Amino acid sequence: MGDHKIIALSGGVGGAKLALGLSRLDLGDRLLVVANVGDDFEHLGLTICPDLDSNTYALAGLNDEVKGWGRADEGWRFMEALGEFGGENWFNLGDRDLALHVLRTQALAKGDSLSDFTRAITSSLDLTTHLVPMTNDPVRTMVQTPDGALAFQHYFVRDRCEPVVTGFDFNGIATAKPQREFMATLADADLQAIIITPSNPFVSIDPILSLSGVREAMKVADAPIIAVSPIVAGMAIKGPAAKMMAELGMPSTALAVAEHYGDLLDGFILDHSDADQADTVAALGIKPLVSKTVMQSLADREELARDVLAFAESCRS
Amino acid sequence: MGDHKIIALSGGVGGAKLALGLSRLDLGDRLLVVANVGDDFEHLGLTICPDLDSNTYALAGLNDEVKGWGRADEGWRFMEALGEFGGENWFNLGDRDLALHVLRTQALAKGDSLSDFTRAITSSLDLTTHLVPMTNDPVRTMVQTPDGALAFQHYFVRDRCEPVVTGFDFNGIATAKPQREFMATLADADLQAIIITPSNPFVSIDPILSLSGVREAMKVADAPIIAVSPIVAGMAIKGPAAKMMAELGMPSTALAVAEHYGDLLDGFILDHSDADQADTVAALGIKPLVSKTVMQSLADREELARDVLAFAESCRS
Repeated sequence: MGDHKIIALSGGVGGAKLALGLSRLDLGDRLLVVANVGDDFEHLGLTICPDLDSNTYALAGLNDEVKGWGRADEGWRFMEALGEFGGENWFNLGDRDLALHVLRTQALAKGDSLSDFTRAITSSLDLTTHLVPMTNDPVRTMVQTPDGALAFQHYFVRDRCEPVVTGFDFNGIATAKPQREFMATLADADLQAIIITPSNPFVSIDPILSLSGVREAMKVADAPIIAVSPIVAGMAIKGPAAKMMAELGMPSTALAVAEHYGDLLDGFILDHSDADQADTVAALGIKPLVSKTVMQSLADREELARDVLAFAESCRS
Repeated sequence: MGDHKIIALSGGVGGAKLALGLSRLDLGDRLLVVANVGDDFEHLGLTICPDLDSNTYALAGLNDEVKGWGRADEGWRFMEALGEFGGENWFNLGDRDLALHVLRTQALAKGDSLSDFTRAITSSLDLTTHLVPMTNDPVRTMVQTPDGALAFQHYFVRDRCEPVVTGFDFNGIATAKPQREFMATLADADLQAIIITPSNPFVSIDPILSLSGVREAMKVADAPIIAVSPIVAGMAIKGPAAKMMAELGMPSTALAVAEHYGDLLDGFILDHSDADQADTVAALGIKPLVSKTVMQSLADREELARDVLAFAESCRS
């Protein structure tokens, strides 16, 4: 592949699975994973970045495959003690996971950027893949509901995605500056593909796409833009994407995801279960690929990553 | 004992043992434990108060009797993860212990005083004993050595008390205001005894005594001032007190501790091993009591607490 570069836009766990698959295809430091920060929040005085951390843990093999989130061999003594003292304990912070939040909070307080800190952490774990936040500026997703707006983690974790969603705001998005390396790679002639991982379109990918100049830079880039559907057989593999789609008045289908991204896309990958929607995707002017998108094993992740890159190559010509 | 009140000045583990003994003598909320804050420090962005926490854990029965410090059933996953990321890991922060530091750092950041926070924590644990910091203002003990000054925890933990000590500074002491309840109780006509627990005289007790107005208020109080020797048979039960005394050019004896406190004391309790020093203590104008001062069991703590109170009563008349 020579100097060809790949960008993957990622939310949390689902996106991190494909990011890991891509990272195992000998791309070295030519793979740039751009993580959503709209899920970030301040909790117990700590700055917590769930999507960045899910990618860090997945890329380093530190994630918990069974639980599906957080770190393996995690402990909960901190949470137990927090509860004894009457502390706010609706958000589970594992004992190992805490180290990252404490170090990050300290680094940001002394003036490091989120990118600086992320680079220090990925270096300490010897990761070759570049992982960057979509921006160093705070962007905070607010979920609109009939009873008012909720900070994302209050909606997602505290209220278990129960409130009906009517829309989203990304606080801070208007002034947030896209991360430097992200923008430089979008403008790089060696860029081979921009991959939208199967993360939640509304709260994981849209914040990235809503950054000033990002959509424009993506459209101008020669590299094809390929999305992988996070909806399979009408359901989200993980998280509230399908429920959100129903509440927003759209069908909970892969096709509706393709329509949501619209003319930004050159290609769209649907699961075999949704093969019947491929023609309608094609009719939108988006090249469809039917593949196996559910990633259970490490081999699944690598296989989908290979499919995505080959498909991008085919979209290029 | 009616409304009689007791003040105990305490450092960390040694002082907390006697504080626990006193707390079990039906004093209810008439026991005020005043903890040193000179050992406090900022680490990883967290405000850590080892002496306050040692007292909290001991009074609540949460302390680790075997290890001799920190919490029982403690875990170290946070420290392991911190090490993986190359974080500063010379100071052991247990997974459970962390909850207190995170909550405190958050409370102080939002403007609560250290007293407010300590009260919230002791209430959440249903402690009846009043535990207060000596001051809400930052006081930081610096250890003078031939190679310059060291922050206390750098001397104590990072450098394992190895540097030779030539003196101490208590940064911030000149402007620190003694805690309100501490001063009010010193001035209370119902005060029955002021007990200097067997903590390190130089770095645990002297910071408290050095607060503006504290010595004067102690001298003016009718209540007798009783110290328990932290030196037994020429050795400190725990910590560097004996080593410090040698380096400061004084004998490592109980008698030298009595001389160090000097005419502040009405009574001084020595261990049976040091009974031969009782007459010389008496010659200083300080009433001696020879007792069992080494507290191994809970019964030892209660017995010494009873001895101290009875001795205080005898010093009163």
